[in-house]
Amino acid sequence: MKLITFDEGRVGRIDGDDVIELDIPSTKAFFEAEGRVGETGEVVPLADVRLRAPIVPKKFFHTAGNFAAHHQELQKVNWSHPVHKGIVFFQNVDAIIGPDDPIVYPEHLTSELDYELELAVILGKPGKFFSPEEAWDHIAGFTVFNDITARDIQRREMKSGVFSFSKGIDTFCPIGPWIVTKDEIDDPQKLAMELRVNGEVRQRGNTDQMLVTLPHLVAYHSPQIFSAGDIITTGTISGVAAIQENPFDFYLQPGDVVEAEIEGVGTLRNPVVSWQDAHGEPAPAKVDW
Amino acid sequence: MKLITFDEGRVGRIDGDDVIELDIPSTKAFFEAEGRVGETGEVVPLADVRLRAPIVPKKFFHTAGNFAAHHQELQKVNWSHPVHKGIVFFQNVDAIIGPDDPIVYPEHLTSELDYELELAVILGKPGKFFSPEEAWDHIAGFTVFNDITARDIQRREMKSGVFSFSKGIDTFCPIGPWIVTKDEIDDPQKLAMELRVNGEVRQRGNTDQMLVTLPHLVAYHSPQIFSAGDIITTGTISGVAAIQENPFDFYLQPGDVVEAEIEGVGTLRNPVVSWQDAHGEPAPAKVDW
Repeated sequence: MKLITFDEGRVGRIDGDDVIELDIPSTKAFFEAEGRVGETGEVVPLADVRLRAPIVPKKFFHTAGNFAAHHQELQKVNWSHPVHKGIVFFQNVDAIIGPDDPIVYPEHLTSELDYELELAVILGKPGKFFSPEEAWDHIAGFTVFNDITARDIQRREMKSGVFSFSKGIDTFCPIGPWIVTKDEIDDPQKLAMELRVNGEVRQRGNTDQMLVTLPHLVAYHSPQIFSAGDIITTGTISGVAAIQENPFDFYLQPGDVVEAEIEGVGTLRNPVVSWQDAHGEPAPAKVDW
Repeated sequence: MKLITFDEGRVGRIDGDDVIELDIPSTKAFFEAEGRVGETGEVVPLADVRLRAPIVPKKFFHTAGNFAAHHQELQKVNWSHPVHKGIVFFQNVDAIIGPDDPIVYPEHLTSELDYELELAVILGKPGKFFSPEEAWDHIAGFTVFNDITARDIQRREMKSGVFSFSKGIDTFCPIGPWIVTKDEIDDPQKLAMELRVNGEVRQRGNTDQMLVTLPHLVAYHSPQIFSAGDIITTGTISGVAAIQENPFDFYLQPGDVVEAEIEGVGTLRNPVVSWQDAHGEPAPAKVDW
């Protein structure tokens, strides 16, 4: 099933060229109800709906260090320390945007706006302290995540041992275009991944390059508890702007369009817009510390 | 006003020895409704209610680096890097517990369980990208936060530049005993702070030792958006177990009782219990990486 949120927050599933509306106020509630949800009877052509972020979870586990290639390349750019496997932080759920929503460039805060393609896993069944063997049962489906990052802020943050602000600014969390339930994916550890900026390939990889499997990753983080509908991300592949020889030729700029694609899951497309275009006024003064 | 959550999630305000129940499903909803909330007519003696965590926010901004003394003392223990002012990460909202709720010792994951007393600020009015001058208007009140931390996990995490898992394990986020609205606090930058373990003073300080003021802190983090009812913490003071000459004499153990007190806000008391006592069975196998 392809589960969507559309228009003013309605929930539906895609059936060919149509959307069949489901009788539930949110996709989070869909997972809380264990998917036992009826239909409203409304059917709308898919072409006529506006897709929204497929879910706003209670918690968004942001993991890193699961693709060796990406972390080897990061060594090149004088990162303050290595990103080890198994690390996690929580992503800002208020920064979530959906397909075609603009990533707003906060020019008063950053001049190094980067992208990171990631497979995001949706947890269906809640739980804590479970084993890798039990983990598959907790996984409900998948969506695409583009981990927008202000590298200059991240560089400053990492000196203190965090990276949260740099990835948590307003509109920095595009996800979508929908949630594909796990029964539609033959082997989630064998999915091609590709990110394009203005049609030009920047990142290319495959989920078979992960250091640990999805069930292991989910079980490892389960001491932090999963609620129904929580998201856990799985790390990005090589090719981010920060590691290029001339990174400023690669950082995102207003006017760019980013397409983040994962085989069998979907393509998440977002334009980058200037502060002025998004807000109709210049960016405010930066609050310094 | 002292705003509480009690019994099975009812909301009320304390009036002398009584609780006046409010007609709203949660304290988060109270702030979403801008406090314009009626009463149910029910009045219960305060002594007869079970206080719960005063709020489960959408987002829990966990800041650090705001008390110079704590971060000077951390240098002593060979931390992998300095904790600079201005850093932030998101706390696990599913780890929140309330007054008298047990902190469950996960003995399969840590042997260095530490405490950190912090003033937690509740945001009432939502907003983003606002200035320090506008920030006070967004602050609604205060509660006490005891930032329970597994120092051995934190030490490992910080090598990669995060500290999230170490502070996000089940039951590691005691807050309470209530929310004191800002009109009841004369000067939030002049509140004595004291944390005791089994009655013995471990941390003692004052909110006047903060490097930046609360409005500045809140404005600084506002690019990450505040929703009504969000929490932002303000850093801890000196005296944590990790910096003692013999830290293992100071780390929390099952049977300990921690009292975290902030002048004018209240005292948050939590026992530490073993995994066996909490779950009725031994701790599960650790999922390693």
